[in-house]
Amino acid sequence: MRSTQTGAAGPIRITIIGMGLIGTSLGMALRSADEKEAPLGSIFITGYDKNNRATADARGRLAIDREAHSLVEALRDAQLVVLAIPIHEMRDIFRAIGPLLPSGAVVTDVASIKGQMLAWARELLPSGIEYVGGHPVLGKEQTGASSADRDLFKDVIYCLTLPPRTRQGAVDVVDALVQQIGAKPYFIDPQEHDAYVSGVAYLPFLLSTALVEMTSRSPGWKEMIALAGPSFRDIARLAAGDPQQQRDICMANRVAITRWIDDTVTFLLEVREQIEDGNGEKLLDVFTHAHDAHEDWLNKRPNMRPGEAVFESLGRIEIERPSLFGRLGRGSRDRRR
Amino acid sequence: MRSTQTGAAGPIRITIIGMGLIGTSLGMALRSADEKEAPLGSIFITGYDKNNRATADARGRLAIDREAHSLVEALRDAQLVVLAIPIHEMRDIFRAIGPLLPSGAVVTDVASIKGQMLAWARELLPSGIEYVGGHPVLGKEQTGASSADRDLFKDVIYCLTLPPRTRQGAVDVVDALVQQIGAKPYFIDPQEHDAYVSGVAYLPFLLSTALVEMTSRSPGWKEMIALAGPSFRDIARLAAGDPQQQRDICMANRVAITRWIDDTVTFLLEVREQIEDGNGEKLLDVFTHAHDAHEDWLNKRPNMRPGEAVFESLGRIEIERPSLFGRLGRGSRDRRR
Repeated sequence: MRSTQTGAAGPIRITIIGMGLIGTSLGMALRSADEKEAPLGSIFITGYDKNNRATADARGRLAIDREAHSLVEALRDAQLVVLAIPIHEMRDIFRAIGPLLPSGAVVTDVASIKGQMLAWARELLPSGIEYVGGHPVLGKEQTGASSADRDLFKDVIYCLTLPPRTRQGAVDVVDALVQQIGAKPYFIDPQEHDAYVSGVAYLPFLLSTALVEMTSRSPGWKEMIALAGPSFRDIARLAAGDPQQQRDICMANRVAITRWIDDTVTFLLEVREQIEDGNGEKLLDVFTHAHDAHEDWLNKRPNMRPGEAVFESLGRIEIERPSLFGRLGRGSRDRRR
Repeated sequence: MRSTQTGAAGPIRITIIGMGLIGTSLGMALRSADEKEAPLGSIFITGYDKNNRATADARGRLAIDREAHSLVEALRDAQLVVLAIPIHEMRDIFRAIGPLLPSGAVVTDVASIKGQMLAWARELLPSGIEYVGGHPVLGKEQTGASSADRDLFKDVIYCLTLPPRTRQGAVDVVDALVQQIGAKPYFIDPQEHDAYVSGVAYLPFLLSTALVEMTSRSPGWKEMIALAGPSFRDIARLAAGDPQQQRDICMANRVAITRWIDDTVTFLLEVREQIEDGNGEKLLDVFTHAHDAHEDWLNKRPNMRPGEAVFESLGRIEIERPSLFGRLGRGSRDRRR
């Protein structure tokens, strides 16, 4: 391990690739933690973006300690690498960093799809490099480093997906990263992640897009504009998301998304049949079930705080175990005294 | 005309049937207008609800001048009758009031479907009674007289649908009612109204219900609850609407709603095919179009104020014409001095 080679006293060297909203906010959140309390202990952050201006801006925001102007420079002594770039750039980056990563480095990402990332990591990262998938569930359409915020991840669910036989030390360091930025680690199987996130995040986007397309392509759209109120506004809102990013998500997540579309079409046709047949009782049952399920969700949401049952991390880490960089265990034990 | 029989000096006698949120708010809004400035001039409001307690409460809120304890009492000398009751009670009320209405009375309603209302009015109201359909586009799920608010209709689009050969006086008085509560009259064909409102209000409800049903019936729902963020929240919100009311709306508006469902299913299957085929270009086109249409809608919304082009009333009334109760013309001329 590099950390052993360079001595345990040096800071953990983190490289963030991509200085957009998430990469910049991540750096700000990591650096704003109190070093004595921080799960990762002392850190040193290198930032890289293909746009040098973005890297310089991130340095100006105190999100990074050092600007790198090439991947080679960025990765030279990296111990933990965070890929904070759009999904459509991910495959090329996996391919590019593979030969450049120091042995023993841990790679994580922030993409909202995890099965495809894991497949690329397996295909393109050399052995000796550990990959732990990550996805902070921000659920907003914010973009741009100008909205970067050290509190962006505060209390946010941060999904972590582990390939089989991931070394515990790699899990530890990513888990510590998540905790250091104030997010809540949530360990989940990558396929389950994709199926669930598709249902609660991409299916909503598709339904929103369907609504806007159906109405705006109608010959009566000009008059409908006037009649569209809060109901339309809320359901149409997600159509404001970045079209390219949504396209990439759909493409990289075909199985889960097409399944949700199939289910939705089946549901809509059932409702259509009940309306056509005048089956008011059945229709009332369906609407009542949805009403109650929504209520149930609202009631459960406020309870979702770290440490509570619904957020039990699957396989949360025992901090006594020696960690990748020999820091996590010590730092954590220190906190208990 | 009654007003002629009882003398032009008396107030216009308005009867509101249904003392829920809309009926109570309507009374409060009407009574809070300055009599000298008010388009309707002097008014006297009788309230009726099948639940006497609701009528008494409305009196307590100063929404009405007089409580009626039967339809007979409520309608005895009514000149303008507003039906502010749920859709599933509408047909029975049309049937019940038919024989009780004084000749020359004008009936209006506040239901969010208009074609079916017009059909019932034709079928169940005697000749000599004028019907003008009304629909304040509130777009909220508020219910209950306890949320009644004299400003509920402020700047709200108020659709008015006219049967062929409606007497101008009947149009005038309902138009004046709408203006007196601060809403914006919007004249529209009933079938167009139903098609458009279905697209911007009921299709959103069905899509919201589809999302909640699809996800909450999934075996992974327990975990999805944790992953559902703002995207889910906004799209799922409409499922909180009253299931019975939504059912009644679907049933009374079959043609328009099933057409929208058909269009939506076609759209979703097209998107599914593009995802399955890996047709990223086409998918990007669709998402970009929806993105731009949404932007366009947002940009047009803030301009929609009374008197502006997009809100030109179709066939707005010339106030010099003599009105049903001989008041509107005078009141309006008075205002000009």
